[in-house]
Amino acid sequence: MNIVNIIAKKRDKIELNQEEIEFFVNGVTNQSIADYQISSLLMAIVLNGMSNQEVIYLTQAMLHSGDVIDLSRIEGIKCDKHSTGGVGDKVTLVLAPLLASCGATVSKMSGRGLGHTGGTLDKLESIPNFRVDLSIDEFINQVNDIKVSVIGQTGNLVPADKAIYALRDVTGTVQSIPLIASSIMSKKLASGSDAILLDVKVGEGAFMKDIDQARQLAGVMVEIGKGLNKDVKAVITDMNQPLGYSIGNALEVKEAIATLNGEGPKDLEDLCIRLGSMMLVQAKEYTNEEDAAKILKENLYNGKAIAKFVELVKAQGGDQTYIEDPSKFEMASNIIEVKTDKEGYLYQLDALGVAQVALELGAGRHTKEEAIDYPAGIVLTKKVNDKVAKGDVIAYMHTNKETDEKLIKMLQDSLIVKDQKHEDTSLIKEIIK
Amino acid sequence: MNIVNIIAKKRDKIELNQEEIEFFVNGVTNQSIADYQISSLLMAIVLNGMSNQEVIYLTQAMLHSGDVIDLSRIEGIKCDKHSTGGVGDKVTLVLAPLLASCGATVSKMSGRGLGHTGGTLDKLESIPNFRVDLSIDEFINQVNDIKVSVIGQTGNLVPADKAIYALRDVTGTVQSIPLIASSIMSKKLASGSDAILLDVKVGEGAFMKDIDQARQLAGVMVEIGKGLNKDVKAVITDMNQPLGYSIGNALEVKEAIATLNGEGPKDLEDLCIRLGSMMLVQAKEYTNEEDAAKILKENLYNGKAIAKFVELVKAQGGDQTYIEDPSKFEMASNIIEVKTDKEGYLYQLDALGVAQVALELGAGRHTKEEAIDYPAGIVLTKKVNDKVAKGDVIAYMHTNKETDEKLIKMLQDSLIVKDQKHEDTSLIKEIIK
Repeated sequence: MNIVNIIAKKRDKIELNQEEIEFFVNGVTNQSIADYQISSLLMAIVLNGMSNQEVIYLTQAMLHSGDVIDLSRIEGIKCDKHSTGGVGDKVTLVLAPLLASCGATVSKMSGRGLGHTGGTLDKLESIPNFRVDLSIDEFINQVNDIKVSVIGQTGNLVPADKAIYALRDVTGTVQSIPLIASSIMSKKLASGSDAILLDVKVGEGAFMKDIDQARQLAGVMVEIGKGLNKDVKAVITDMNQPLGYSIGNALEVKEAIATLNGEGPKDLEDLCIRLGSMMLVQAKEYTNEEDAAKILKENLYNGKAIAKFVELVKAQGGDQTYIEDPSKFEMASNIIEVKTDKEGYLYQLDALGVAQVALELGAGRHTKEEAIDYPAGIVLTKKVNDKVAKGDVIAYMHTNKETDEKLIKMLQDSLIVKDQKHEDTSLIKEIIK
Repeated sequence: MNIVNIIAKKRDKIELNQEEIEFFVNGVTNQSIADYQISSLLMAIVLNGMSNQEVIYLTQAMLHSGDVIDLSRIEGIKCDKHSTGGVGDKVTLVLAPLLASCGATVSKMSGRGLGHTGGTLDKLESIPNFRVDLSIDEFINQVNDIKVSVIGQTGNLVPADKAIYALRDVTGTVQSIPLIASSIMSKKLASGSDAILLDVKVGEGAFMKDIDQARQLAGVMVEIGKGLNKDVKAVITDMNQPLGYSIGNALEVKEAIATLNGEGPKDLEDLCIRLGSMMLVQAKEYTNEEDAAKILKENLYNGKAIAKFVELVKAQGGDQTYIEDPSKFEMASNIIEVKTDKEGYLYQLDALGVAQVALELGAGRHTKEEAIDYPAGIVLTKKVNDKVAKGDVIAYMHTNKETDEKLIKMLQDSLIVKDQKHEDTSLIKEIIK
């Protein structure tokens, strides 16, 4: 077998077989295939696509390119959720304890991406002393003990994806449904989950800008699940504005705590209930989503969800008094009121613009080495279809840096105001099973 | 400007502008663009193509990536011919002296490709002491003196093409009309010719397998000529069998000598007259091809063409007695008769198969370093539509190696025999001006 022939096949729109795809992934992993050959094949995949069967083979080969976590010692059906990346997306912080409080087994391993704002691990680390670096044994014991743990990915998971992703980023081959789907799914499957719910974000603030792309991506990932005998479902959800009101690590944890106390923003609570009800059915805790939704809502309001979060934080070494009293979270030294001079109804809040501002305020990392400033971020005051009047405060910027007029302007510009209300404000666009 | 954005544009089928194409070619030349980025863009070009305007910009940028030979000291219109690569293609050996004998100025620089069988330079070097490494000054003086010189490419011509070609070969990006056209044309134009006639081979033994591809390639190269104000014409010619009967360096020189004496194979003579008559018009020596063809034919039969070849060989240090008496060429030690057991009419002679056998007999190089065995090669006895009977000798293999049954079998297999004659045996398929 020969990589040039494999590239030529894909170039000529001929389907690759399992052996050829494994040859490619092995060659990527052991570096026997040159980067310029990998990138040439990646571009051919971007432009000529892959059949579902090819993506299944690719995912399977990538998944086995490194360690595969064995969670068989965990009792019950291990559920996982993955979001393709939303701004203000603190769903995992809410869902993990909430699901566990309803009896589901939540063994969550998160990757540490390089996003505009921190990932789940960064958010949790804004709770003093919270440990995301448990050993696999500690992780398994904790899940068996309290039904829930959230840690960082451990071991050498999917090295082929690391190599491929690094190249995609610099060769114009990021935008490709088969490559995105296999990257996400190989990492999820290597983490040892039994059931996976995918939250595919769609909208200006998301990777997938339109519903067709999102539907394709979701469809391919569900097919990968079928091909590899895993229970995978997908929900396409709106990202034409950030989720909730808070963006930034400690700010998001506080919003998650409010939500776990039944006092969260409606969009965030609705999404958690909807995703959670599907996951409780996937976990076989409930046979229908309506019953599951009912108990989820109850637990948000009866104290069980927040109690489970306290338990989770405590188990992983975090200071649970911060959860019991969120006013303990340190505030940024500089809180800047941002006003608008626009008039009308909020039509869209450019989530990427907001995220970019949050990054500059200190909430994210420009490079892997950079430290995150946990209190930094943005608290919005408006949601889509809210009335906007000249002089209204639209957001508070939290930062330990100097006031920067350019960032204020950027935030103001991210507000898109129209005369009429937005017709489609549904959070859940589509469900793909 | 940023290479990732340029790759993304081509990926998204957006036309690149001159600045972007120059940025790419400069980055290739000065190695500021990584190989994996070059190959990604090359694959995007293979799959999404290029407009004629893009190919013109690409050719121009490549042409200026290194030395551009200044032949302005040569008097008259400098003509060049380029073949996209045929088996048994000794046309340059015939045409160069023939055209010069008719008054045209022939300043020919040949590249040293890595073909199955030797290139023009290798063929000339099978004449003892023939020098292809003249300095540019010697070259110019010789052309002014005797109207003709054939040398190897000198200086640092089109380094961007060298870098790109090396990558194309190992990344499945060889097959691309814009890349092939810009590669050929940038090298031709950097060699300083005024008028170029392209011989685009089509058929099983050629790079272009069908007439549509050949027509596209020829069309793009003629457009490049128009875009860069050079007189470029193209002829699409058949390569469903080798040209003439001989394949291999000294064997081909001997066939060229015979042709220059008016005793060559019909297909080779016809092609030389046809290409030559177009070139004499391009050189403004004649106003119409009919008159040009007449004088070309005369000079093949009246001794003027062969006399010019003797003059050329002598001028470049070669032993002209070999031209006057070709029996002086050393023969291979082992001449193997190859018979067929097929019956019917020769329908096709798989030129690539024949070339592969010639390579193994010693006529070509597997690697750039390998030495060529000049006497090695094949002399065929049949042309397409000749009658073939069981037991007929179809070829003689000339080699200094042991007899190899596998090669005999390969040569036998390259003979495609049918019950009926081939309907289209025209050598010239199309002319593109």
